[in-house]
Amino acid sequence: MRARSEARMQKLEVRGEGTGWHRESYFWPTPPEDGQMVITGPEARHISRVMRHAVGSVISVVDGAGGEHEVELEAVRADRVTGRVLSNTSWAREPKHRVAIAQALLKGDHLAQVCAQATELGVSRIIPFKSARTVGWLSEARLERFRTVSLAALKSSTRTALPKIDAPVDFERLLGMDGEFDQVLVAYEEENGVGLGAALRRDVRSVLVVVGPEGGFEPAEIDALKAVGAIPFTLGPRRLRAETAAVAVAAVTLGLLGDLG
Amino acid sequence: MRARSEARMQKLEVRGEGTGWHRESYFWPTPPEDGQMVITGPEARHISRVMRHAVGSVISVVDGAGGEHEVELEAVRADRVTGRVLSNTSWAREPKHRVAIAQALLKGDHLAQVCAQATELGVSRIIPFKSARTVGWLSEARLERFRTVSLAALKSSTRTALPKIDAPVDFERLLGMDGEFDQVLVAYEEENGVGLGAALRRDVRSVLVVVGPEGGFEPAEIDALKAVGAIPFTLGPRRLRAETAAVAVAAVTLGLLGDLG
Repeated sequence: MRARSEARMQKLEVRGEGTGWHRESYFWPTPPEDGQMVITGPEARHISRVMRHAVGSVISVVDGAGGEHEVELEAVRADRVTGRVLSNTSWAREPKHRVAIAQALLKGDHLAQVCAQATELGVSRIIPFKSARTVGWLSEARLERFRTVSLAALKSSTRTALPKIDAPVDFERLLGMDGEFDQVLVAYEEENGVGLGAALRRDVRSVLVVVGPEGGFEPAEIDALKAVGAIPFTLGPRRLRAETAAVAVAAVTLGLLGDLG
Repeated sequence: MRARSEARMQKLEVRGEGTGWHRESYFWPTPPEDGQMVITGPEARHISRVMRHAVGSVISVVDGAGGEHEVELEAVRADRVTGRVLSNTSWAREPKHRVAIAQALLKGDHLAQVCAQATELGVSRIIPFKSARTVGWLSEARLERFRTVSLAALKSSTRTALPKIDAPVDFERLLGMDGEFDQVLVAYEEENGVGLGAALRRDVRSVLVVVGPEGGFEPAEIDALKAVGAIPFTLGPRRLRAETAAVAVAAVTLGLLGDLG
């Protein structure tokens, strides 16, 4: 755990919050200058009006790239909040491993749910992709919504690094990504023998786990993934909805790598 | 995997579905008589009109208590479907361990999502409970909705045993349940050292995992749980929404016990 400043601890005691400091983080990508943080726009309004922080409040501001600033507020207006940086940390509360999820396009709002829950759990990247049995494409507006949902999850989960949510790729492009990860796994319902615990190498720094669409992969797609080194694994004999599979895979993978407690 | 009858395999080949037999199960709790299954009401309509099964179709009918009947349809009407039982199995595709989740009451529809996803993953029982920081109670109508959602998940996941969803209990009653399980665990955000993998005994046949409300447990509640033998564990330094925590806990626990592939 990070060192806690005297000033902050005193304030926390006054507010009676004990160890529950990290109720929510605020997001501001611009770094402080000369130890001063200036936040404007909707995030300033959120801090001042919605969360009702006042002068003297100590808040956590994350930049989405792993940086976190502990800021004591010195001036609070609806459209502009400024404060003094008490401390800076880097990569706090982030997993040690990069776990990426490639998720086939899903109907409805299921992919948004995957983005939110995978962000909370600690996934580093989400790659939507098209395969033989996916329907439609992903509009720029929906992609933007996924990124908004992921940012909200970053703040509620007090993560410091924002997962990258890729623009959707076609299956060929997905196949070409194997070089970016130490290991590539694929959840496949026709796989019988190998579970995730057996398939996942424990010495990886990065792993990509591929989860198919509602209708599953075509055998030729699995063959193509295996040809670039992907290891198929089973999630057991029950049929999981894709969004449940994605969240289960994220939790189990992070857990096996020691990044979920 | 279960033995497959000649007749069924032939039909599957005709329909070109290969190994994808278990696309969905149908639910009918009344056992067949003299090898004949009679299904009426909405489930008959679902089979005949929505899924458009015809005479000769082979469907999977589960009773929610672990029983599954492979039925070849002999008469199909909108309100009544009858067929000949080709085979019976018991407890197919069910986990070997009973994993129960006690989830504090949540606002909105989050508990319904937990019921659906926990059912898919293989949880045996869901116990909603009230604690110091939960708000409100659970109406009979919402409890009924949770059971409906869980039944739908049973069918889509091709489970054969329906999880029990308890009527909500107060915290005292929850404390008294420790005798019903080989081990009781509780996700606690102030716990630092012990992860789920370290807390969970591998020799259990049944385990209850307790997940708190959005606002967390009060320290006195954790003390009371520990006094009845519950082991606190951490899900890591990130703050998970309760519904994400519940699904992650279900997936990781079933995974660690070898029941998720």
